[in-house]
Amino acid sequence: MKALDPAWRERFDPSRWFLEPCEEAGALFGLECQEVLLDERTPWQHLQVLETRHFGRVMVLDGFLMLTGRDNFIYHEMLVHPALCSHPQPRRVLVIGGGDCGCLREVLRHDQVERAVQVELDERVTRASERFFPALCEANDDPRAELVFADGIAFVADAPACAFDVIIVDSTDPIGQAARLFDRAFYGQCRRVLGETGVLVVQSESPMIHLEVLSGIRAELSAAGFPQAATLQFPQPSYPSGWWSATLAGGSVVDAPPRPEAERLPTRYYSRGIHAAARVLPPFVAEALRRGTDLS
Amino acid sequence: MKALDPAWRERFDPSRWFLEPCEEAGALFGLECQEVLLDERTPWQHLQVLETRHFGRVMVLDGFLMLTGRDNFIYHEMLVHPALCSHPQPRRVLVIGGGDCGCLREVLRHDQVERAVQVELDERVTRASERFFPALCEANDDPRAELVFADGIAFVADAPACAFDVIIVDSTDPIGQAARLFDRAFYGQCRRVLGETGVLVVQSESPMIHLEVLSGIRAELSAAGFPQAATLQFPQPSYPSGWWSATLAGGSVVDAPPRPEAERLPTRYYSRGIHAAARVLPPFVAEALRRGTDLS
Repeated sequence: MKALDPAWRERFDPSRWFLEPCEEAGALFGLECQEVLLDERTPWQHLQVLETRHFGRVMVLDGFLMLTGRDNFIYHEMLVHPALCSHPQPRRVLVIGGGDCGCLREVLRHDQVERAVQVELDERVTRASERFFPALCEANDDPRAELVFADGIAFVADAPACAFDVIIVDSTDPIGQAARLFDRAFYGQCRRVLGETGVLVVQSESPMIHLEVLSGIRAELSAAGFPQAATLQFPQPSYPSGWWSATLAGGSVVDAPPRPEAERLPTRYYSRGIHAAARVLPPFVAEALRRGTDLS
Repeated sequence: MKALDPAWRERFDPSRWFLEPCEEAGALFGLECQEVLLDERTPWQHLQVLETRHFGRVMVLDGFLMLTGRDNFIYHEMLVHPALCSHPQPRRVLVIGGGDCGCLREVLRHDQVERAVQVELDERVTRASERFFPALCEANDDPRAELVFADGIAFVADAPACAFDVIIVDSTDPIGQAARLFDRAFYGQCRRVLGETGVLVVQSESPMIHLEVLSGIRAELSAAGFPQAATLQFPQPSYPSGWWSATLAGGSVVDAPPRPEAERLPTRYYSRGIHAAARVLPPFVAEALRRGTDLS
């Protein structure tokens, strides 16, 4: 396109950029890179760690950007703290996926947590995070933390009823291996493992460009027997559209105001105020979720 | 980068993409294009209108994306309605910039408005919008609307004291011509033209990658004599980082809850709930604004 400053186009060297197309939106996101720190074929996927110019290190799986050093705090805080601050006593927490350990670290900031289990399919993701994102892994040696490398769906299916208070699904997009983490069969098992009082939280994609996916997640949660759900919105500059969501599901606890401890967490994005504000959805999103859930 | 799916890279044809670098963030945003509808050198700038694959038509000025058909509603609603719903009686409204007429349309949704003046430097922008974005211009024939093509800074400097109830600054980024729309001299003139009871609202860039600019805007507003200010955050997928802000300035009216009419506006992003929620800033942004304003 002629839109570009010719001088910039002259300097633009695509080989120095990480470029991620979002085909369903006809959009592209790129980050200027300085170095490839890791390039590995694991038994499950293509794993890369790149050093970028202004977003710190980034982890990439099969070409999709998973996290950047600069903005992952928003995602991790918003996936973990609303769920843990809604539950009156989150003692036992299960993270499905989340191999970078960023969720695990946020979970362990809560004193009430007695046991936090992270079930990641691909051990290489965690090993790469230990090496290149040590801050995200700083709680891995906490005696309450337990790292399991296994299939999350099988882990939940095998877990006893009422075994956990909170389940956090920190998955990749609903394609390939991860698609089964977005359906009612898996959500039903989560419901069984959480019992009546537990809270499930799942990353639920972009309210702008994946509104149908988000709406589908809400419908599947409802079909799986979760009586209540709430979607929270937040910015995530390095994900497609820069706008992301998390969805809580459970009983009345989903609508509980955050516990006072929420204010004492050492967070940069989350706060008690944000907890309430993030739940306010714009009319076009609220309307789509109403329609979608009605259809289920 | 090797991160990309080789098959996609094979198909990727840069000439079919609008690509906008955000150099200060080492980031790139792109939209797949189908056609160049307009490519014009106006007396002021390089103006283009492109047809994209999934974001509708987009307007580009000097290589910077100004609006897309798909997501401009968020920006226009969030720039206009919080200001107009805070003011008890917004009868006289001035829009500085905003040549696409999207703000003007939102302003005229308010029955209380008796006169709405849009002062845009570049008439060609408005003519292009009339032709390619007719929905944004649908209120241009409203008898309350007045289109002026002139320098906004001179217009404000020449306006009598207390001439307007609300001033909306819908400007480009603070570089080149537009930089003077971000300083205390201009804000001081706005304060004079608004009087004690008026409200100014300015687009105030990305809370993630332009936090220093946003902080500087707050400091300049304070230096110009505005006793109170409030920044609102919202998503804007097609702008750098996908996360944007507007800042209100004025007297106590800035903190007023929105008038009940807010709930009856035919909006897709804005609502009374969003009005309050958008004002809740994450701790890292709130902290930066506190520090910045203290320095002024």
